[in-house]
Amino acid sequence: MIVFKNIITTSAFVLCCLFGIQTKAQNHPNLILTKASVAEMRSQLGKVALFDKSLADAKTEVDAVILIGIIVPIPKDMAGGFTHEQHKKNYTILQKAGVLYQLTQDEKYAVYIKNMLFAYAKMYPTLPLHPQERSYARGKLFWQALNDANWLVYVSQSYDCVYDYLSKKDRIYLEKNLFKPFASFLSEGSPQFFNRIHNHSTWGNVAVGMIGLVMNDEKYVDYALNGLKIDNINPNAKDNDGGFIKVAGQKTGFLANLDDPFSPDGYYTEGPYYQRYAMYPFMTFAVALQNNRPDLEIFDHKNGVLIKAVYALLNLTNFNGEFFPLNDAQKGMSIYSKELVTAVDIAYYFGNKDTSLLSVAAKQGRVQLDDAGFAVAKAIQEKKQTPFIKKSLNLSDGSDGTQGGIGILRAQKGSDDFSLVLKYCSQGLSHGHYDKLSFSFYNNENEIYQDYGLARFVNIDQKNGGGYLKENNSWAKQTIAHNTITQDETSHFDNDFETGSKFASELIYFDSSNPKQQVICSKETNAYPDTELKRTMALLTLENFENPILIDLFSITSKSTHQYDLPYYYLGQMIDANFKYETPTVLEPLGTKFGYQHLWKVGHSTLEKNETTQLTWLSNSKFKTITAASKSGDEVIFAKIGANDPKFNLRNNPAIIFRRKNAKDTRFLTITETHGSYSPVTESAKNAFSSIKELKIIHEDENYVVVSILDKKDKSTLVFLTTSKAESTTKHNLTIDTKEYEWTGTLLIKTLE
Amino acid sequence: MIVFKNIITTSAFVLCCLFGIQTKAQNHPNLILTKASVAEMRSQLGKVALFDKSLADAKTEVDAVILIGIIVPIPKDMAGGFTHEQHKKNYTILQKAGVLYQLTQDEKYAVYIKNMLFAYAKMYPTLPLHPQERSYARGKLFWQALNDANWLVYVSQSYDCVYDYLSKKDRIYLEKNLFKPFASFLSEGSPQFFNRIHNHSTWGNVAVGMIGLVMNDEKYVDYALNGLKIDNINPNAKDNDGGFIKVAGQKTGFLANLDDPFSPDGYYTEGPYYQRYAMYPFMTFAVALQNNRPDLEIFDHKNGVLIKAVYALLNLTNFNGEFFPLNDAQKGMSIYSKELVTAVDIAYYFGNKDTSLLSVAAKQGRVQLDDAGFAVAKAIQEKKQTPFIKKSLNLSDGSDGTQGGIGILRAQKGSDDFSLVLKYCSQGLSHGHYDKLSFSFYNNENEIYQDYGLARFVNIDQKNGGGYLKENNSWAKQTIAHNTITQDETSHFDNDFETGSKFASELIYFDSSNPKQQVICSKETNAYPDTELKRTMALLTLENFENPILIDLFSITSKSTHQYDLPYYYLGQMIDANFKYETPTVLEPLGTKFGYQHLWKVGHSTLEKNETTQLTWLSNSKFKTITAASKSGDEVIFAKIGANDPKFNLRNNPAIIFRRKNAKDTRFLTITETHGSYSPVTESAKNAFSSIKELKIIHEDENYVVVSILDKKDKSTLVFLTTSKAESTTKHNLTIDTKEYEWTGTLLIKTLE
Repeated sequence: MIVFKNIITTSAFVLCCLFGIQTKAQNHPNLILTKASVAEMRSQLGKVALFDKSLADAKTEVDAVILIGIIVPIPKDMAGGFTHEQHKKNYTILQKAGVLYQLTQDEKYAVYIKNMLFAYAKMYPTLPLHPQERSYARGKLFWQALNDANWLVYVSQSYDCVYDYLSKKDRIYLEKNLFKPFASFLSEGSPQFFNRIHNHSTWGNVAVGMIGLVMNDEKYVDYALNGLKIDNINPNAKDNDGGFIKVAGQKTGFLANLDDPFSPDGYYTEGPYYQRYAMYPFMTFAVALQNNRPDLEIFDHKNGVLIKAVYALLNLTNFNGEFFPLNDAQKGMSIYSKELVTAVDIAYYFGNKDTSLLSVAAKQGRVQLDDAGFAVAKAIQEKKQTPFIKKSLNLSDGSDGTQGGIGILRAQKGSDDFSLVLKYCSQGLSHGHYDKLSFSFYNNENEIYQDYGLARFVNIDQKNGGGYLKENNSWAKQTIAHNTITQDETSHFDNDFETGSKFASELIYFDSSNPKQQVICSKETNAYPDTELKRTMALLTLENFENPILIDLFSITSKSTHQYDLPYYYLGQMIDANFKYETPTVLEPLGTKFGYQHLWKVGHSTLEKNETTQLTWLSNSKFKTITAASKSGDEVIFAKIGANDPKFNLRNNPAIIFRRKNAKDTRFLTITETHGSYSPVTESAKNAFSSIKELKIIHEDENYVVVSILDKKDKSTLVFLTTSKAESTTKHNLTIDTKEYEWTGTLLIKTLE
Repeated sequence: MIVFKNIITTSAFVLCCLFGIQTKAQNHPNLILTKASVAEMRSQLGKVALFDKSLADAKTEVDAVILIGIIVPIPKDMAGGFTHEQHKKNYTILQKAGVLYQLTQDEKYAVYIKNMLFAYAKMYPTLPLHPQERSYARGKLFWQALNDANWLVYVSQSYDCVYDYLSKKDRIYLEKNLFKPFASFLSEGSPQFFNRIHNHSTWGNVAVGMIGLVMNDEKYVDYALNGLKIDNINPNAKDNDGGFIKVAGQKTGFLANLDDPFSPDGYYTEGPYYQRYAMYPFMTFAVALQNNRPDLEIFDHKNGVLIKAVYALLNLTNFNGEFFPLNDAQKGMSIYSKELVTAVDIAYYFGNKDTSLLSVAAKQGRVQLDDAGFAVAKAIQEKKQTPFIKKSLNLSDGSDGTQGGIGILRAQKGSDDFSLVLKYCSQGLSHGHYDKLSFSFYNNENEIYQDYGLARFVNIDQKNGGGYLKENNSWAKQTIAHNTITQDETSHFDNDFETGSKFASELIYFDSSNPKQQVICSKETNAYPDTELKRTMALLTLENFENPILIDLFSITSKSTHQYDLPYYYLGQMIDANFKYETPTVLEPLGTKFGYQHLWKVGHSTLEKNETTQLTWLSNSKFKTITAASKSGDEVIFAKIGANDPKFNLRNNPAIIFRRKNAKDTRFLTITETHGSYSPVTESAKNAFSSIKELKIIHEDENYVVVSILDKKDKSTLVFLTTSKAESTTKHNLTIDTKEYEWTGTLLIKTLE
């Protein structure tokens, strides 16, 4: 197809409008499908199993809906309610029906689309803003413009597929009454929604851009790519999630939304849950641009960040392919979502034809009904897939990669996978949590220590219309809800979004060069004034432990004395603690604000001496033990989530909290073991006890901390942790008690005989 | 082989002893394996896949242990501890090594057994009672004689397998130093253990009987079959679980233990968890008796109760084959346990060669290494298996079937199974719970309403040595821990074992003749003086509901006024309640005794008028709603298990409790729906709301209760429940508001247009 430069296109556009000329008639579909690709796919029908299955699935689904007839209700409900769900269903079906029309050439699909579009075109001009007033940017079909944008992204594709089927008169009618006002409403009519750096805006940009490409209307394409020139957005305005609408001077539009929130490694600053959500418009519009504006070389943009983003997403998952629930994220969302099917297919086809992506697609069990999906299905048919192996990796955050990041360490023992996720990135826009240096830890798909994720039941109407719950702010975003340090019972940055948005944590080093000794070290100097937090985490495979162990060293230096709380949100049934503790007969919340009001204090201990404190629990048929090098005066608190939760919105999970009062410069040290197993069928408990007898720090200075682990066979292991900048080639030497130790790398393990 | 009548055998035994004659030399093995069966199995090695696999598994396991060498430690530990686990491992391996010796004729197994037996024979005469003093019947190798009996049941088989391999001198040494003193200790030496009606005694009887058969020592065989003639047991003595040791005049021994606790339907009065445990000795000794005393016709005893017991057990399981946790029962125990492999193989071979048992065996994926297992494996190889279909059924309790029972109603919707288990049986000996008319309800393997089961972590040493926890008495056995009525915050029978043991509930009717309208009705008149409890439960498949619904009508008639609490222990995340309730800022226990001290009161409502109260929750990706016809003044309490639990021994599950105060004759009515689904991947919530708008009782008299269900489409359904004796052929007529209704059967469903 012909590519115009912007200025020429605009002129052409003006001419077309003036004279009603359709310069591109007979060139549809041209958006995701093309005439050539449709011909190719049609010629191969019945020959490529996964494609045929996906086509058959779509046919079954759409045929059933067609039988029900056209339902286009006057908008009324919140998410989860009838009108919301119906309009959502409509756009999904419309998109699929379009593809089915092209691939089967069965006219019933075109008829259905036409009737549906006319129903919308009849209603749309009559619609005021949606009656639900909760959004900072209300839609017309839905309570928020975001969902309207979703609608248009899908329906543009549908319209493209029947463009040639429709008469010119029909097209003019539809564009005048439905598509143009729709696109104008989402752009000019909703600048606070459209002209931002935000996943909402990405959807908005793409919606407007896609319909612009179909209609060959350059105004909308320009809006989409480059944003509105004038928006009159108040620089202090915030959205419903408390995020700023716009930072002064910020570029907007699709290209800016691609440049800004993605790091050079493909990490999207909001976190994988929202990255997944944004991937569909990003990838789909990229295909549309590749088909219509190859000059943009969109897949090469920012060193191919779109394709890198797909790999980042696939790596930000646990054993079962579920995304790590960083920031606001609903657990369970996974590589099996439709967005990831899209992302993987496109990354294969428009990327390097990486055969390891085929094994992901094969797991997904379905493909997109387009060129990319077809190519994937065909390659799978030809048995080209190779394993997709998730490795330890560090993903930078920030558009230039300098806003901290996410470190993932992975170790294997037999068929068991252990994954550590350390979060040292930036705030992550309005969906970010106040949890610098927090972590989660997995054994296969099971959380040893969980990140709580969001406090929301997405699309469950009874729970606040499926929207965010107030406990998302009062609990899920607070620091104490995470596996990191809270100082003086106050969240990082005093829970202030503006402050939090200014800073990111800093990587000191990441070293996964030796799979048996992987370490990451990161620091945070802004969460609390005058206090530096530094976390060093090592995933070690040692001979005297059944499984890889996790060493967690949290170093704190401050100019004044504070109370520090370090929680570990374990999951499962408590088995035993090796220290004395008390349990109250009446439960009270642990505090009054910053999330503490949501924790019941269910047990408590004050330690009378320095000691090795241990808690063992059982989950997923395996025992786990956390061992802490506790100090005299330390408190250990058993907590349970759920206080001040009048609607029972929270999950009542447990935590163990290590508390140290009146501390200035101090260190928390723990080791987490996974050991043994329990079967209720054989009733056999194997290796139910920790292997650690004593844990202590035997040396600490600015650059090194030496940990001594005495196991139950009285074998002693020293672990030399480096807490300042180091690489796998760095040489160190340290003298302890006249004995000199020399080593190269980030870590030394020394077994004493 | 030759069968002697008792008197002759006894004489023969005396002669043999006097002259040291081994009349049966060269006739071993004769216990579970026989010379003939070994020859047959050996001839088929390599030809029967499941048998070969089971043999290979045993070989792998035993070979690995043989490499480690003989470990026979001085007894010291409780369950879960080293010496306990080692002796347990030893007897398991010895039994398998014996079979391997016979089937492979590899002498290394015989050598291993010989060395191990000699190690035991050297130690045994030196052993005092086990140092742990917690059992009413201490063992020598283990803390309780029960485990010693386990040991001998397995080791007898091992000895039998190497009997001919050993020299006469070796045998005399082993029998004198190990087997005879061992058998004497378990019988004459432990009458309080041996001479009871109890699963402990069954193990004791069988242990002594099996070694008696191997040694051809009629004294022990007679002890085993008929018990000790003199035992001097104090008639008031109780065991550790609070059960009476012995009821005056009661017969004892294996035959009495077969007659008494099994009902004619094969239900074992302690419940399926302990039935499973007892099945191994019951079935194994039955085979040994069949091989040695065919005149006893043991498999025909009491109309074939042993085989019936296997069917009862298989039916007392959920979708995944896990036993319903009635009475003391650890959840997760299932048809995959080794005891059930034994039971199923033997029931096939010594029963009617029922091919449906083969499909169970195929699921189990392994067979016993004996005639029965071989026959099963061979039949599976020949593809003879047919599906094992679990149907609705009623199992009587009590040796003559008159002590109440267990009713199971099962309904299917597509591939989904719904199972209701109503418990209206007798106390169930010392492992019984005080929960007359309690129930549990399953959707496939998932509990919609759970039975808590026991409070114990079997074999987890840190939890009270793996033994029963004190919360088993203070919580798990109490009435309020179950889905049934508690009157005046006092458990049934005032939590008195002696009183509870005198009574059973009574079946009024059980009708599963129409799979869409299944009903059970049962009453309990002794749990509280002067009060009659009656429960009518119907599992109905109705057109206006997505899945089968459960109607639960609890009718109470009393001579005085009381408070009634009816809890439902649902599992999952609360989604919504349709009534106003308050949540406390500080949690207090719901009461002070009878289990109430273990419930946190987390929410509370007092209803101001008669109303339809609903609670919806989400579990296993499906929504559930309980709808109650509540009355003005009723309280609804949200509770959570876990108060007064200083060792965190309890699971912190929720309950909704319907409370009615100052009631005399009254009825509780609820309906439970399973509806819709939620997927965190598509984030789609389907049918998330109950279909019920209003629920009420529109007629109630002594014989009938008519329930009116108004659905959300304003369609009204009347359900006529019969609460007095009825059958599927009974004719009824009832006039309400001058309108006459006539029907036949136990239930009428009338849809009003």
